[in-house]
Amino acid sequence: MNGELLGRIGSPADVKALDPAELPQLCADIRSTLVTYGKAHGGHIGSNLGVVELTVALHRVFDSPRDRIVFDVSHQSYVHKMLTGRAQAYLDPDRYDEVTGFTNPEESEHDQFVLGHTGTSISLACGLAKTRDMMGDLNGGSGIGNVIAVIGDGSLSSAIAFEGLNNAAEQGGNLIIIVNDNEMSIAEDFGGMYGPLARLRESGGTAEPNLFHAFGLDYRYVEDGNNVAALVEVLEQVKDIDHPIVLHVHTLKGLGLDAEDAAAGLVEGRCEANHWQDPLSAADRLPGARKYYGEMAMRALEERFATEPGLVVISPATPGSNGITRAFRERAGAHYVDTGIAEEHAVAFASGIAKAGGRPALATSATFFQRTYDQLQQELALNRTPATLLVFGAGISDADNTHSGAFDIAMMSNIPNLVCLAPTSGEEFLRMLAWSTSAENHDPVVIRVPGDMILDGEREGHYPAFRADECPESFTFIGQRSDLPTPPAPDCPWNRYRISHLGSEVALIGLGDAYRIAEQVAAELTWDPKNPIDATLIDPRRYDALDYRTLDAIAAGHRIVVTIEDGQLDGGWGEKITAYYASLPSLSRDRQTHYRATITPQHVLNFGADKEFTDRVPMERLHDRYDLAPGRIVDRIRTALASGR
Amino acid sequence: MNGELLGRIGSPADVKALDPAELPQLCADIRSTLVTYGKAHGGHIGSNLGVVELTVALHRVFDSPRDRIVFDVSHQSYVHKMLTGRAQAYLDPDRYDEVTGFTNPEESEHDQFVLGHTGTSISLACGLAKTRDMMGDLNGGSGIGNVIAVIGDGSLSSAIAFEGLNNAAEQGGNLIIIVNDNEMSIAEDFGGMYGPLARLRESGGTAEPNLFHAFGLDYRYVEDGNNVAALVEVLEQVKDIDHPIVLHVHTLKGLGLDAEDAAAGLVEGRCEANHWQDPLSAADRLPGARKYYGEMAMRALEERFATEPGLVVISPATPGSNGITRAFRERAGAHYVDTGIAEEHAVAFASGIAKAGGRPALATSATFFQRTYDQLQQELALNRTPATLLVFGAGISDADNTHSGAFDIAMMSNIPNLVCLAPTSGEEFLRMLAWSTSAENHDPVVIRVPGDMILDGEREGHYPAFRADECPESFTFIGQRSDLPTPPAPDCPWNRYRISHLGSEVALIGLGDAYRIAEQVAAELTWDPKNPIDATLIDPRRYDALDYRTLDAIAAGHRIVVTIEDGQLDGGWGEKITAYYASLPSLSRDRQTHYRATITPQHVLNFGADKEFTDRVPMERLHDRYDLAPGRIVDRIRTALASGR
Repeated sequence: MNGELLGRIGSPADVKALDPAELPQLCADIRSTLVTYGKAHGGHIGSNLGVVELTVALHRVFDSPRDRIVFDVSHQSYVHKMLTGRAQAYLDPDRYDEVTGFTNPEESEHDQFVLGHTGTSISLACGLAKTRDMMGDLNGGSGIGNVIAVIGDGSLSSAIAFEGLNNAAEQGGNLIIIVNDNEMSIAEDFGGMYGPLARLRESGGTAEPNLFHAFGLDYRYVEDGNNVAALVEVLEQVKDIDHPIVLHVHTLKGLGLDAEDAAAGLVEGRCEANHWQDPLSAADRLPGARKYYGEMAMRALEERFATEPGLVVISPATPGSNGITRAFRERAGAHYVDTGIAEEHAVAFASGIAKAGGRPALATSATFFQRTYDQLQQELALNRTPATLLVFGAGISDADNTHSGAFDIAMMSNIPNLVCLAPTSGEEFLRMLAWSTSAENHDPVVIRVPGDMILDGEREGHYPAFRADECPESFTFIGQRSDLPTPPAPDCPWNRYRISHLGSEVALIGLGDAYRIAEQVAAELTWDPKNPIDATLIDPRRYDALDYRTLDAIAAGHRIVVTIEDGQLDGGWGEKITAYYASLPSLSRDRQTHYRATITPQHVLNFGADKEFTDRVPMERLHDRYDLAPGRIVDRIRTALASGR
Repeated sequence: MNGELLGRIGSPADVKALDPAELPQLCADIRSTLVTYGKAHGGHIGSNLGVVELTVALHRVFDSPRDRIVFDVSHQSYVHKMLTGRAQAYLDPDRYDEVTGFTNPEESEHDQFVLGHTGTSISLACGLAKTRDMMGDLNGGSGIGNVIAVIGDGSLSSAIAFEGLNNAAEQGGNLIIIVNDNEMSIAEDFGGMYGPLARLRESGGTAEPNLFHAFGLDYRYVEDGNNVAALVEVLEQVKDIDHPIVLHVHTLKGLGLDAEDAAAGLVEGRCEANHWQDPLSAADRLPGARKYYGEMAMRALEERFATEPGLVVISPATPGSNGITRAFRERAGAHYVDTGIAEEHAVAFASGIAKAGGRPALATSATFFQRTYDQLQQELALNRTPATLLVFGAGISDADNTHSGAFDIAMMSNIPNLVCLAPTSGEEFLRMLAWSTSAENHDPVVIRVPGDMILDGEREGHYPAFRADECPESFTFIGQRSDLPTPPAPDCPWNRYRISHLGSEVALIGLGDAYRIAEQVAAELTWDPKNPIDATLIDPRRYDALDYRTLDAIAAGHRIVVTIEDGQLDGGWGEKITAYYASLPSLSRDRQTHYRATITPQHVLNFGADKEFTDRVPMERLHDRYDLAPGRIVDRIRTALASGR
């Protein structure tokens, strides 16, 4: 029966207590539980189906938490969770949300780290092993036994994974690196190492060149990575080993799914669809903003491929979620490059393309751009090469704490020379993309791809209500312009804020997706019949530099200036506006030719996210916590108006 | 005669025009020029002496700038500069400062990129080659011929270098990756790959495992990497090759130096001293802040090694410049780990050590912490592991644009959960280090190691004038405290600002090294006999979170609050104080229990660096440009006081 044996597993000790003959039954139980769970809840089902036997064997042979297992990225840790006291979270649909999709020490002592970005497991494991060896050895006082890293073949292409491999052999001591080779990254593996890796599989682990040998590591191959008895035997042999070893295990992603499962949206085997199972994907549902705007961007670029040979789309292994469909990739040919999970290479590669006269557009998630900060700063910004970075999944969200989109504004917009744009409609997004990938542009450009708030607005027919060509670009609000010299930021067509509506008393500036919040605040401010406020509404569009002229102009006509952004306030965009106004009256003479006593607003209020990690917190609660609900913003504006000064 | 033949080389065409028999003489000329230059000017002389023949051969065989040469890190590009129209900058002492120490497209069309961080050359070269191939081929319309990356064996250990190797074979097409193997990183090479690499050298390139083969790359070995005729021959054979190849060239760092040069501070061969030649190092000069405080920290940690087995110092290949001396390393044994140039591994490794109960302290430059941003955020901050990061070389400086220390505050202090501390004396630095590496601390801690402004003060006997134990820690300035809830930032002993002097009207808050500027401003404010100002002086010490209580307290007693920081204003520390005051009157009720109309200062002024890259600009000019000279700050304060509001 589905889950019967699994339901009796309360801890790894129960796995050890089973008769060897029961292990295949436990695996079957886990597999059917995963399939049921996948159909109803979704998740990284494919990778977990591939490591059922490996995980059972690990907990059969090793003694967690004394022996430490570090799962790379940890999206393949569902089976591990089932075997370490959390089976009910997969068996009981009412409890599906009790566990996260990644390892989490707050859930269990069997989980070492919160992980969601690839490639770090070997380095983390080296650290655990180092402390063990400093405090004794396998049997010493550290309380740490074997240290095991489990890393997929796709993750192996990440920068830090190589650094980890290179450090492991030199460190020495007990360390077991299990390479879970299912012949897939998120999409296909990409890289020169995968040919030799395939020949290793074909030769039963005997062929040279052997990448792991080249890093000075001991190596062993296990062909039948979905045979629990075989795995138990090998793991028993490497247990307590006195030096680092790579155990190369050949598994099948999505093993056990059948045609019926396929109908429910679960796909067996080595294919891209296997990576992430979404039970709603088969439903007649409109695509979310990521795919919608991603496909829109790809269509626009594709039209130009025939006449612009240097136009290249780059994806570090995550095409599907950003609307870079398989069909597009096939049509694009050499105009599309999947670098594997290698964001650093992707950005430096883009800089090289741009330097030589090409026009690259690199698409990935806000959270994954973190992985290449130094290339953003050095290879792109310092060298001022005209690459376009499409930032997907940016903004406050109910995502896992490993994948937050709340940090990209603070991270990217403080790097000199990076032009950062936040379109508020699909049309404007395409205009920005067309410019950034054209010969007109000479600088690296970040485009924060619109999110669901904008898309919802467009679907409601709300947009494009505020088209740039209807707006007073060169508008000067009141009196003279500031002659404050333009800062050294690069030039672009979106240097000036767009004033969508001209009111008085309160000026609302809403960046990107938060522009929709500003609109709602503007509407609500009119609601109080005794004291309706006709607020000015501004769409800044560019967030790496300020439009000083518009800021000067509105200062005189408005008592309160409000900034709203969809990201962390600390180090973000709104604080720069506050600081600008605060510094105005005293700028020294050769830094301004300002009239002496510039009028500044009485209050500048910044709205955005707190500086914190959030883990799957519903959006409504976040907006409440951050005072981002329009009603809260209205309250604070009215409080400030009442406070005077 | 020294430099005679070199002096006749105006461009690569002149190298091609020489008789083959003259090439060794040209090499000798270059070598003696480098030695003379090194004695007088200093620089990366060792690596350049190693690539004299390689660089001459490259310009003999290839056709730069049509053929593109990308030098990794580019500190070995002096010879290239000599052969591409810039020989006089090395021959004529009056012109030594005409060129930078790195490649720079603004200097010459023969330079591809501004580079100073390791490992990116292969990825950049892939980008150049990609555009070439998209626009035709070697003989097509792109104007780009052969693409050549020159990378050292030490750089090969960096994350992105592996990503580049892995992508190169898959990309295909002409690409020549020259591995300049001088058997050294900055200090010794570190990593499991260097054993197999040594066996490759010993076997004349025939041994397996071959790392480059494992990445699917063609490979060729050249033992005599300092024989120009041999190199010319091999390069002619690989020129116009139709697929990527690794040319593994064995060279000798510092070749040609002798005992006399050693007396002048130039050291031959494969040793750490060879990496950076400083003509002043032999002089009777006091060490700078990096080495001074670095050695101080290492001494303090070393005393604890015998009783604290989990205490580990980590350096990603840059020990010497941060006071981690060879003698210390030898005594430290397993308490010291050099990870190679592998900052990502270093941070994740530190997180693992801390997770297991050890206490790691990781030391590197502010600019190199950029290379591991994602690990700072995910592995350290999200996981709240108590590692200590010692940030050396932070702050505005006259350094190259590739090595600026002006960006670390904006980069690190906006990451949740990272406790960021800026000590203003050596004594306080040691107290912070003792706490952060103790069992008391449960969070990752950044310590911005004091710079030369602090050290100069200490040497003048100026410090420790403001010792923490003399200061009113729990001081409440005026009236009631704010009951604003503490933000979710981690706790630490430096949550409260230290009020060094209590005055009125103007409050000066100077962070870290900038505290010394604040002191000078305080002094100058008293100078005007008609209107002397007795300013309050505050040492904040912690910069990832604000001390709201002190900020509230000083607001009522001071018309102007001034923040001064040694780094970029945008996204930095001072703007947070401005934004805090700006938001005060209107915080919604459940986000404060503040008294209704909090008094805020009339003006908050932020002083710090503009958002820009600066390249070897003298400090005085930078302080002038940024209004950071004490006199300028005084002017702006008096202007603001006069402006009223």
